Amino acid sequence: MDSKIAVIGGGSWGTALAIVLGKKGFEVDIWMRDKKQCEHAKYARENVKYLPGIVLPNSIDITNDISEAIYKKDIIISSVPSHTVRDILKDMKKDMKKDQIIVNVSKGIEVDSLLRISEVVKDELPENEYVVLSGPSHAEEVAKDVPTTVVVSSQKRKIAEYVQDIFMTPKFRVYTNPDVIGVEIGGALKNIIALGAGISDGLGYGDNTRAALMNRGFVEIARLGSKMGAKEATFAGLSGIGDLIVTCTSMHSRNRRAGMLIGQGKSLDESIQSIGMVVEGIKTTNAGYKLSQKLGVEMPITEEIYKVLYENSDVKNAVINLMMRNKKHEIEDIAEENNWE
Amino acid sequence: MDSKIAVIGGGSWGTALAIVLGKKGFEVDIWMRDKKQCEHAKYARENVKYLPGIVLPNSIDITNDISEAIYKKDIIISSVPSHTVRDILKDMKKDMKKDQIIVNVSKGIEVDSLLRISEVVKDELPENEYVVLSGPSHAEEVAKDVPTTVVVSSQKRKIAEYVQDIFMTPKFRVYTNPDVIGVEIGGALKNIIALGAGISDGLGYGDNTRAALMNRGFVEIARLGSKMGAKEATFAGLSGIGDLIVTCTSMHSRNRRAGMLIGQGKSLDESIQSIGMVVEGIKTTNAGYKLSQKLGVEMPITEEIYKVLYENSDVKNAVINLMMRNKKHEIEDIAEENNWE
Repeated sequence: MDSKIAVIGGGSWGTALAIVLGKKGFEVDIWMRDKKQCEHAKYARENVKYLPGIVLPNSIDITNDISEAIYKKDIIISSVPSHTVRDILKDMKKDMKKDQIIVNVSKGIEVDSLLRISEVVKDELPENEYVVLSGPSHAEEVAKDVPTTVVVSSQKRKIAEYVQDIFMTPKFRVYTNPDVIGVEIGGALKNIIALGAGISDGLGYGDNTRAALMNRGFVEIARLGSKMGAKEATFAGLSGIGDLIVTCTSMHSRNRRAGMLIGQGKSLDESIQSIGMVVEGIKTTNAGYKLSQKLGVEMPITEEIYKVLYENSDVKNAVINLMMRNKKHEIEDIAEENNWE
Repeated sequence: MDSKIAVIGGGSWGTALAIVLGKKGFEVDIWMRDKKQCEHAKYARENVKYLPGIVLPNSIDITNDISEAIYKKDIIISSVPSHTVRDILKDMKKDMKKDQIIVNVSKGIEVDSLLRISEVVKDELPENEYVVLSGPSHAEEVAKDVPTTVVVSSQKRKIAEYVQDIFMTPKFRVYTNPDVIGVEIGGALKNIIALGAGISDGLGYGDNTRAALMNRGFVEIARLGSKMGAKEATFAGLSGIGDLIVTCTSMHSRNRRAGMLIGQGKSLDESIQSIGMVVEGIKTTNAGYKLSQKLGVEMPITEEIYKVLYENSDVKNAVINLMMRNKKHEIEDIAEENNWE
């Protein structure tokens, strides 16, 4: 228990991970950007906005000073909204030492650059080792010790295995996977499909409809990911279909809930307002759509949701448009490959 | 609309498909084994036990006479419980003509022989064309015109496409896939995982836990299927992960509900009693476990559920046993393949 850990960002996911590590006996500092939130959490031993009712163990310190948070830490967990990662890395830069490992737990794509978080980190902190942690893991459940599985990925096996050992508990099971690209793409893009699943639910469609959307969504994420250099098998794993399942079916999912509100006829702004936390999928839909255009990958669900969110397309038509597509063979490749006659 | 259709079996799924076809204008005869159910359905225009509240269109006839049901029909939809398929085919044999197409919509494996339904049909009616229809499609939703997608598979493309055209409506979208083995295995074995998902829910575990189980379940089904000659891509499709998703997350799923009761501490018999309809996954767990043994395929979730159902293993340990397995790399193959260092 010699490793010291900082969690950058006091949202629900960073706090839940700090609780897992704090209960395991590690010294953990959480950096919270918001001064009032920070003061309250220190005093009340609770992150009342993001994880109400959960006690923060005494091994957790909370600070508003980012330099203090990362000082002499072995592992820096980055759990800020994806679109703020670069700016916060810039803030950290002057205090960072080369041997500190960045563990990213945010799920998104930088919209302007279309870079994955690992690439943003490489831009800003090229000398630090990078690990991504992802998988089906709602913070609310992790904080309550609900059995959960995640995957960590890094270019170096020993770094991934070191981080695996840090996080592993009987209830929080950590696997490793060498495919950083696949783990990042699966985690980010499933939020688009979760918006779609929520829209379908909000429109009053059924479980059959949602499953069809999730299934086709999974296929288009894997298609894009493969084009970007990911391994297909990763999409069949925890950070792929596993995370997609939990995000599209759980009421803990903000992305699904935002989609439900949109499906019920609320505006995008009203929906975001009502959720009251960052809904990563909204920006990711923009990034995902641009990636599909740039790389020439067909992503019909992403495209429909993009049109609803960014081009005022009527949400009522979105699901029906998808159902009415012309394609008739489920997996064209198989039909061709096998000279099916 | 010249094709004439028989539905063998008056359960919820056969009835829902008859409604889809009847509304489309086809003449459909449903054969119901139970005389009282048959008489009531004829008179009330409703299948009150299996699809209460749904009106049967006038294009549907109901009969208790199987010879009459299949007489001069082009398509015979077999929608009886999997373990009764062989006996009912034997009953039909003397009346069957060579050019009648069997469309199987049951999802199971014959326990004693470990044969798929297509193999059972080949045994009994070797001269008839065979099509399997599968996918995420709860009968209750299909009967209410909820947008649904399914896949049909046959060894011959033109037979699959003919059946696709028969069933296709704007709300009931039918894809084709040449991989009969994959479509059958995915549809049958997902019921095992649905029992497991229900058990996890019944034990009070969370959405994270269920997603992990579903994810690992998906992987082991694909592993077995590949060994049996299925195409891996099929498991990523509607009859694979699509059907698994809906069966593990919907309250319409009898298999999931049976699992929940077992997880809550009810006995197997009490649970089956309480569902009041065939729970295919119970027999399929037996068949799936035997297949995994016979073919030497590791299927840890199937094995745990088998032990709970058939060897009185304590259900409380089942999920934890799965979480505590030693495996640490998510996808061993990828780690090896890439010489991850």
